[in-house]
Amino acid sequence: MKSSAYLEALIKKFSKLPGIGPKSASRIAFHILGMTREEVEGMARSMLELKANIFACRLCGGIADGEICPICQDPARDRALLCVVEDAKDVITIEGTGEFRGLYHVINGLISPLDGVGPDDLNIGPLVEKCRGASVREVILALNPSVEGDATSLYIARLVNPLGVTVTRIAHGLPVGADLEFADTATIIKSIEGRVKI
Amino acid sequence: MKSSAYLEALIKKFSKLPGIGPKSASRIAFHILGMTREEVEGMARSMLELKANIFACRLCGGIADGEICPICQDPARDRALLCVVEDAKDVITIEGTGEFRGLYHVINGLISPLDGVGPDDLNIGPLVEKCRGASVREVILALNPSVEGDATSLYIARLVNPLGVTVTRIAHGLPVGADLEFADTATIIKSIEGRVKI
Repeated sequence: MKSSAYLEALIKKFSKLPGIGPKSASRIAFHILGMTREEVEGMARSMLELKANIFACRLCGGIADGEICPICQDPARDRALLCVVEDAKDVITIEGTGEFRGLYHVINGLISPLDGVGPDDLNIGPLVEKCRGASVREVILALNPSVEGDATSLYIARLVNPLGVTVTRIAHGLPVGADLEFADTATIIKSIEGRVKI
Repeated sequence: MKSSAYLEALIKKFSKLPGIGPKSASRIAFHILGMTREEVEGMARSMLELKANIFACRLCGGIADGEICPICQDPARDRALLCVVEDAKDVITIEGTGEFRGLYHVINGLISPLDGVGPDDLNIGPLVEKCRGASVREVILALNPSVEGDATSLYIARLVNPLGVTVTRIAHGLPVGADLEFADTATIIKSIEGRVKI
């Protein structure tokens, strides 16, 4: 490809973003070429501002513009209900439903001995501390249904249950709109195990 | 979604890029959050440099870092062979094959009366001028196989043919690796019309 060094530099950088291959990167680069100078400057500034101004919330580990995130600051939230997630992205996913009214706790990963990640590498200690205080009633484990997710859920449950806090985990089963015919065996087994009385 | 104003601003900006929806934009924003400060600055700079330093080549209308693009400057190129494309992106696509050894001519759009685009709005005049000079032997029309593309091809052929220049257009038919069973009717008709003796 013989074109412009600037264009190729940008395409190369965009190709490294998740879900973007060389073809999408090239489309995006041409789109940027067609944007006004102000729009490009706005986008570049937005990226730098994001990097400079976002911190992990001191209480839950989620995304915050300051020291405490807006969710932990919200007085309308149910402080007795704690949803445990793997990373800050998951907070936004669950918030997207608009249904959950408790607080979050981000543990920043999953226990994975093969990758050398043990319980002490995760944000689990502060979670146990929170549960030791009298205010927490229920901990909902919303970790991914994988071997690592299940192991981490089990580990947390063993620590938190003795403190008199109810520990639950989100349901695993057929996704809404799915077809039993095309579901994988593991999901079907989970959906039978987790059957609910109607 | 209650998280960070900076995060939401960037997600909104990225969602406007071609082929990127809100979910991909959110994934990319989190990826950027995980990049080092230097990497983010490099990407932002790259975008601004692209916008500031790229011009249309004075000869072919393609992408150039200076006044003339590297393709038009290359002495090894066959100057008698001219490939006409809709926009500068198409130059890069064809260059990606590494097969074409002639020069390009970008007409910057297609004739489309419904959108108010007539022949005078396109870079067709300079193309005819080039063909009037003795040096051009063949013009290859590589426009998209659409109603507008076909109309534009026909228009150019009518202007250039009388100048003693051979006008061809790229073949339309079944893409390599495609299955006849799943091809659309228009493509099958084109592939039968364009059949080749073997």
